[in-house]
Amino acid sequence: MSYTPPVKDMLFAMRHLAQLDRVAALPGFEDFGVETAEAVLEESARLCREVVAPLNVVGDRQPSRWHDGRVTATPGFKEAYRLFAQGGWQGLAHPQAYGGQGAPRLIAAACAEMLHAANVSLGLCPMLTDGAIEALLMAASPALRDKYAAPLIAGTWTGTMNLTEPQAGSDLAAVRTRAQPQADGTYRLDGTKIFITWGEHDMADNIVHLVLARLPDAPPGVKGISLFVAPKFLVREDGSLGDRNGVQCVSIEHKLGIKASPTAVLQFDGAVAELVGEPNRGLAYMFVMMNAARFTVGLQGIAVADRAYQQALAFARERVQGRALGSNEAAPPIVQHPDVRRKLLTMKASIEGARALAYVAAAAGDAAHHAQDERERRDNLALYEFLVPVVKGHSTELAVELASLGVQIHGGMGFIEETGAAQHYRDARILPIYEGTTAIQANDFVGRKTLRDGGAVARAVCEGIAQTERALAEQDGEDFRVMRQSLHAGRMAFESAVDYVLAHAADQPVRVYAGAVAYLRLAGVVLCGWQLARAMLAAYASHDEDLAFGEAKMATARFYAEALMPQALALEAALLAAGGTVERVHADML
Amino acid sequence: MSYTPPVKDMLFAMRHLAQLDRVAALPGFEDFGVETAEAVLEESARLCREVVAPLNVVGDRQPSRWHDGRVTATPGFKEAYRLFAQGGWQGLAHPQAYGGQGAPRLIAAACAEMLHAANVSLGLCPMLTDGAIEALLMAASPALRDKYAAPLIAGTWTGTMNLTEPQAGSDLAAVRTRAQPQADGTYRLDGTKIFITWGEHDMADNIVHLVLARLPDAPPGVKGISLFVAPKFLVREDGSLGDRNGVQCVSIEHKLGIKASPTAVLQFDGAVAELVGEPNRGLAYMFVMMNAARFTVGLQGIAVADRAYQQALAFARERVQGRALGSNEAAPPIVQHPDVRRKLLTMKASIEGARALAYVAAAAGDAAHHAQDERERRDNLALYEFLVPVVKGHSTELAVELASLGVQIHGGMGFIEETGAAQHYRDARILPIYEGTTAIQANDFVGRKTLRDGGAVARAVCEGIAQTERALAEQDGEDFRVMRQSLHAGRMAFESAVDYVLAHAADQPVRVYAGAVAYLRLAGVVLCGWQLARAMLAAYASHDEDLAFGEAKMATARFYAEALMPQALALEAALLAAGGTVERVHADML
Repeated sequence: MSYTPPVKDMLFAMRHLAQLDRVAALPGFEDFGVETAEAVLEESARLCREVVAPLNVVGDRQPSRWHDGRVTATPGFKEAYRLFAQGGWQGLAHPQAYGGQGAPRLIAAACAEMLHAANVSLGLCPMLTDGAIEALLMAASPALRDKYAAPLIAGTWTGTMNLTEPQAGSDLAAVRTRAQPQADGTYRLDGTKIFITWGEHDMADNIVHLVLARLPDAPPGVKGISLFVAPKFLVREDGSLGDRNGVQCVSIEHKLGIKASPTAVLQFDGAVAELVGEPNRGLAYMFVMMNAARFTVGLQGIAVADRAYQQALAFARERVQGRALGSNEAAPPIVQHPDVRRKLLTMKASIEGARALAYVAAAAGDAAHHAQDERERRDNLALYEFLVPVVKGHSTELAVELASLGVQIHGGMGFIEETGAAQHYRDARILPIYEGTTAIQANDFVGRKTLRDGGAVARAVCEGIAQTERALAEQDGEDFRVMRQSLHAGRMAFESAVDYVLAHAADQPVRVYAGAVAYLRLAGVVLCGWQLARAMLAAYASHDEDLAFGEAKMATARFYAEALMPQALALEAALLAAGGTVERVHADML
Repeated sequence: MSYTPPVKDMLFAMRHLAQLDRVAALPGFEDFGVETAEAVLEESARLCREVVAPLNVVGDRQPSRWHDGRVTATPGFKEAYRLFAQGGWQGLAHPQAYGGQGAPRLIAAACAEMLHAANVSLGLCPMLTDGAIEALLMAASPALRDKYAAPLIAGTWTGTMNLTEPQAGSDLAAVRTRAQPQADGTYRLDGTKIFITWGEHDMADNIVHLVLARLPDAPPGVKGISLFVAPKFLVREDGSLGDRNGVQCVSIEHKLGIKASPTAVLQFDGAVAELVGEPNRGLAYMFVMMNAARFTVGLQGIAVADRAYQQALAFARERVQGRALGSNEAAPPIVQHPDVRRKLLTMKASIEGARALAYVAAAAGDAAHHAQDERERRDNLALYEFLVPVVKGHSTELAVELASLGVQIHGGMGFIEETGAAQHYRDARILPIYEGTTAIQANDFVGRKTLRDGGAVARAVCEGIAQTERALAEQDGEDFRVMRQSLHAGRMAFESAVDYVLAHAADQPVRVYAGAVAYLRLAGVVLCGWQLARAMLAAYASHDEDLAFGEAKMATARFYAEALMPQALALEAALLAAGGTVERVHADML
């Protein structure tokens, strides 16, 4: 149950597909060229492999425990988190002005993938802390930023996002937590928040809760929600910790997976809080945090899938069973069986495609914030925001499917908990749910990402795919030919889906939104395939660097083109045809 | 977390698709017409709903426990099993000569579906007992039959199947358990068997182990395996129980799901056994048992999926969240959201299609054994055997996918164990593994079921589909037109897959077997769609019987045609294209 970060494939995707050299040419990223990236990834890999990964199974067997309002993290987690913080990893992508390292998102993405592959439960704590840091840096006053940012970035404190309430899950308009202004300019919070990841624990000195709540005069719905910061321990002027604040962890959940990550019910009883940014703009701030978190959850999907893949591959190489087709010779390891290889290739190709797409998105995020040219910033921001729901929705659905395949490869042993394959199957299941379900991602992809700009980014992406098709056509050989045909068919399916969405969303919204998940998955299948097509070209061009890697990449990409890209046809058909029937079926016909 | 057996849809499938009237016209089944079927199903439904279903969650939280060689079943299971046995349900499909009721498989299939939907863990005990009964009735001497069949059929004793050993999972040729002949004509068994379902428990007076083992002079491989019967307690001449036999339960497994079903490691130390049938023919006998068990596991897939569906539907009707598209009015229950309805329809359509196909297979099984005309028996046997791997492989893979959708419909609540949706996701995961993994089913489907007869049954099935297409063409209306086009496209994909398998299996076996699972799933998608097409015609013809049921069936079938049947295209493409790449990829390229 070990985990080896796939540094070689990560660097390949960063260099050849996400164009690390262009990221390193952006102002502020001059120190993050390929050699630095390699050094950072190797160092991150060492920590993840040696310290974090072995704790994954410990967390599953000894979940974090609640007792009398306090949560004790899984044995070993506190020490591992301290090493993580001391290594500066919490501050990797945050500003140097607050003690961070100011690295590009692209490098941070690879490090995040490793961390979550090593241990999703542990990785969630830094992920939520990142969200709190980003919200504060974006929206808070200088005084609040000074108070909270440095200890969060140093990892001596951790952060949380308090959105959900019992009646307000995906629909934040229903938030009821109240914020009462006080004479001293602070606020008092009252309400109950649920599903608060790492909402209480003993791994850090303080916990900084970012909380959505309503002011007394707030308008109803989403336009009346403000963002507050309420620490577990009040913070004195000099930055030292004072009294316990009025927020209690009343219980944690008993979950299917990620059991070491305490999912808290937090009760705010007159908790002292400060307003972050302007009143009633909380949802807008939260969306920025959520976009970052959504992208990282997409990485979690790739991460858990890769962990499951590594485990299944190791098992398949060792397990001896059956005999080779058409032979009565001694039993081979099951990796020799055609169907086992087919399953492993499905995992490998899906993971490598999804990884490449996520890294391309991360590089776009870097250019969106650091490019000098305004138009370049704007175009890259649009591309990044277009890709986030695809990375989140598609990679997490893949994680569930691939972790299931991983169990299947183990046969009966996969169903035995001690084997470890089942943990990935359980852990993966939350990924398409939290930080916005796949349906929420799909609605975002239809509404904000396709309709709002009249399909401009979608069509630009299609033109990028067409360029890759032309580049494939210039190469000789069967692999390129097969990929070109497959990619072309995929693009046609995606273009027809975009046209359908644009043509019918206004007059037949139920029909279109009934197919939103198919539309998102179709985009995911084709865009990941596109990245593998680009990977094919890059692997061929850099063939002499690493012959075996290049050959494996060619075969993996070709397998994707043959076996996985055709899913686009089924998804297109479902999107275009089924909406009317969904509309016609009433609840009492189910 | 209640469960209501879908008696109406079961009877619809039995009457209109599996042609219950023709089954009831077979010799020996005269007493099992539609009224009897209805009465039997209602009585079974009452037991399953009231007694068995409420124990499902109990079993998940309080698994059966091992202590010092003895297993204590989950609280309540012993009493429920006693009611089941006393009601005559264990003997439902077994011969009246041994105390059974002699009902058709078709009726027994519906009852089995209910039992497993109510509680897979509990249902496994009768399922394994059925296997033991069938093996004995088929292969054992009259003396052995008399000794064991009646108490097994009465449910006072239960049965097990002992195949797997640590080194012999899917590959039974590797069985090592030894059988030593004794002077008195009995044998002594020595060896270790693993994954023995209900291998030890306290629900019955005795446990009858059917065991694969090797005689001293046995040839190597599968042709040297014999079948033995070894009871937990030795049985005296008069049928009373004697000494404890030399078989011990040394441990039970800690599993992902079906936790109430004890999965035993059995140690045979000179256990007294009797030979069943002829020496070295054990595998052939076991295959008959396994075919029956495989079919029932297919029913388990439908059952768990339906239980997950019922739970998700109930949640979706109650959970209030978000707002209707294009409206700011009060929040509707989430069943109103287009994507939730899409997910529920996916579950409903898949389940109803798979149920119909399984019942059609059961009816073929009845005709295979009871028809007067030899050719009719032979044709029906061939059809039944063709369908078994599809029912097993496709329905169980569906169960995993649909239970996962069921969790997703619950959002964050689905990940909380107390909600109950997660249990189905965990329970379902064993179904594509035990009684032959999906890959084993697919290899059987390619080898024994398609190649061996040169595709004769496959082509006869295609002709049946074409007939349904012609019947659809005779109807007016958009629903029929859409289904006809979709079914036609599905049949074309299946025919092309059959042609491919027949053309290339001999010279390119790795390529073909690399696509075997795609071939099986393609068959599953198209044949279930075919049954829904037939259901459409039948619902229309009997429209005035139940208007609401008919309308729901039409819409469900149309949704399948639009949203699910197109998967056939992707599966066909994967089968035809990807085998060469799988062949080319060596283990060190993964």
